[in-house]
Amino acid sequence: MSVTAAQGFRAAGVRAGIKQSGNPDVAVIVNDGPSDVAVAVFTTNAFAAAPVIWSRQVLADGTARLVVVNSGGANACTGADGFADTHATAEHAAGLVQAVGKDFGAGEVVVCSTGLIGERLPMAKLLGGVDSAFAAASAEGGDSAATAIMTTDSVPKVSVAHGSGYTVGGMAKGAGMLAPGLATMLVFITSDALVTREVADSALRQATAHTFDRIDSDGCMSTNDTVLLMTNGASGVAPETAEFASIVREVCADLARQLIADAEGASKDIAITVSGAAAETDALDAARAIGRSNLLKCAIHGEDPNWGRVLSALGTTSALFDPASVDVAINGVKVCKGGGIGDPRDLVDMGAREVFIDVELNAGASTATIWTNDLTADYVHENSAYST
Amino acid sequence: MSVTAAQGFRAAGVRAGIKQSGNPDVAVIVNDGPSDVAVAVFTTNAFAAAPVIWSRQVLADGTARLVVVNSGGANACTGADGFADTHATAEHAAGLVQAVGKDFGAGEVVVCSTGLIGERLPMAKLLGGVDSAFAAASAEGGDSAATAIMTTDSVPKVSVAHGSGYTVGGMAKGAGMLAPGLATMLVFITSDALVTREVADSALRQATAHTFDRIDSDGCMSTNDTVLLMTNGASGVAPETAEFASIVREVCADLARQLIADAEGASKDIAITVSGAAAETDALDAARAIGRSNLLKCAIHGEDPNWGRVLSALGTTSALFDPASVDVAINGVKVCKGGGIGDPRDLVDMGAREVFIDVELNAGASTATIWTNDLTADYVHENSAYST
Repeated sequence: MSVTAAQGFRAAGVRAGIKQSGNPDVAVIVNDGPSDVAVAVFTTNAFAAAPVIWSRQVLADGTARLVVVNSGGANACTGADGFADTHATAEHAAGLVQAVGKDFGAGEVVVCSTGLIGERLPMAKLLGGVDSAFAAASAEGGDSAATAIMTTDSVPKVSVAHGSGYTVGGMAKGAGMLAPGLATMLVFITSDALVTREVADSALRQATAHTFDRIDSDGCMSTNDTVLLMTNGASGVAPETAEFASIVREVCADLARQLIADAEGASKDIAITVSGAAAETDALDAARAIGRSNLLKCAIHGEDPNWGRVLSALGTTSALFDPASVDVAINGVKVCKGGGIGDPRDLVDMGAREVFIDVELNAGASTATIWTNDLTADYVHENSAYST
Repeated sequence: MSVTAAQGFRAAGVRAGIKQSGNPDVAVIVNDGPSDVAVAVFTTNAFAAAPVIWSRQVLADGTARLVVVNSGGANACTGADGFADTHATAEHAAGLVQAVGKDFGAGEVVVCSTGLIGERLPMAKLLGGVDSAFAAASAEGGDSAATAIMTTDSVPKVSVAHGSGYTVGGMAKGAGMLAPGLATMLVFITSDALVTREVADSALRQATAHTFDRIDSDGCMSTNDTVLLMTNGASGVAPETAEFASIVREVCADLARQLIADAEGASKDIAITVSGAAAETDALDAARAIGRSNLLKCAIHGEDPNWGRVLSALGTTSALFDPASVDVAINGVKVCKGGGIGDPRDLVDMGAREVFIDVELNAGASTATIWTNDLTADYVHENSAYST
């Protein structure tokens, strides 16, 4: 049910003809209230796409009622013309709401795009799709919306969790360009809880910092990343702040894990946990550096527990540790002890899709985990034929 | 002639049986003087290998007479036992010199190793190889030494340049794990120029900063990187400092370019030049970030001039620029103008092995170039079956 699991939200996904494949490519999410809290986290890429620049402005007041999403084109690096396209999309969508007799402006419409960078969107097709999707939007439309936001995803990603008398549901897209400062993705989360903008914002930031910010499939950061949380209070329940944050985090963690599981060309999901760090930033930096080593990612693809690749990546970071005190376990076998040779590599069973690499720095009490993927010939093939 | 192009140097490469392939795997370089200046630049990896730790000590006084190199094993992350192996290798080699009647200590022996991390070296085989190589060392042995230091290299890399009355020659190995703070490689340069330790050191640091430090094939930094320069004054010529530095840099640039041309699995050599930067560090950071984008490297492999991948990588850096003022040319075609759509992608001819990506930040007067490679299925295959 994704974004329509919570009460008071309608959604739909339709085929607008933007994608050459003919697959669904336009989705809308409508918040029917009563309240209209909307908060988001966006990419930190300097080349933020036109829809990101637009939606940042829309959400400056912490509210929004309508979301328009298209796949098949990112509308990034398209200059003033591209921004005008986004603005026109929002105006057009607002007109649809006005037509059913409501007072509504473009400033209440979040717009998101995903796909190839550096190409204009086919506006006639897009606006036609917005019309169809708005007309089709229903309380049963969450799954069709989740399908319409897919690009190279092989499956839609949805998640639902329940609090005490309220619901949080979400959908996500993203399969490549998964990296920090969000991962390349669009994520939409809705809830019928009654919360303030401040509570929603805090819950979302805490959740993304520990979930989406800690998946790093290929080290590449997108121009379009957006994680949006909308709440409408339709349940009538005003939850405890901590409980609400926990439920939002549960949904984010589930969606983040689904993104890694569907990453382009990947055959392994790799959890790199760095423990015993002097600070959480050290643990995070070290885990990310290890997770970005192409040589390690190739070795894991070959089911080779090559711990030298772990240490050589760790050794390039500024994390505090004594090289002679570092232990590394792969799938539970401590192959490296005290920075040197540990238990035999051939004791490690690498057969499963999930691989767990645990690095103990013995330098403190902080811990962090990054999820990444292996590097495969399929990843190369998929990304060497992407825009052509 | 590589390291024996300059007068007063002998070298040899032999088969010691360390490599399972039976290929040559031990080399020596002997400096017969008269002077014994030796300076080096080493990896900055925290997990510096035992031979790196040893050789740093040897070169603390700026002199050395003998170099022992083995391929087939890196002797990295091997703890105190591994360091003892390196020490024993130096003592053994020093004994060979003493046996021909010279006053000589292990502290004059540079030791270098390359190969798999986290395995002890087969010492009996290695020491036997040192005996054979020392006995075979001759003024014609430079090329055989260049062959014996290869690991996954497909060809030996050698270079020679001539100053006014003196010679600088070198050899290098390295095909994967090529990255900053040297690139994974061993480089040995010899000269019969008569220069002080200070002149040699300055020339080497200037040269490596602009050559080896600016190749970044796969973003992975080795535990064993070493660039060694030895000068013996055998030519009797004391060159101008600037001229000597220029000749050393010429040899380093030639060897660095050969490393990129032979990088594991690569089908493209990519020069990323960032111009118009506010500072050289900005240009370098930006060029390196672009060169490390797996998505861009895949696109170039597919001969796809996907400039969105250039901007999305650039946008993650802290370099100063206005996103609306950035131009990108690929092989001379300005596909991105002012951060937006430029000339048509299909005007770009991507057929050649060399690809030139020029990014103009329009933010200043500084420039830097990073050489990298494309990301290929062959790279994945080669590195997923490396240690197994």
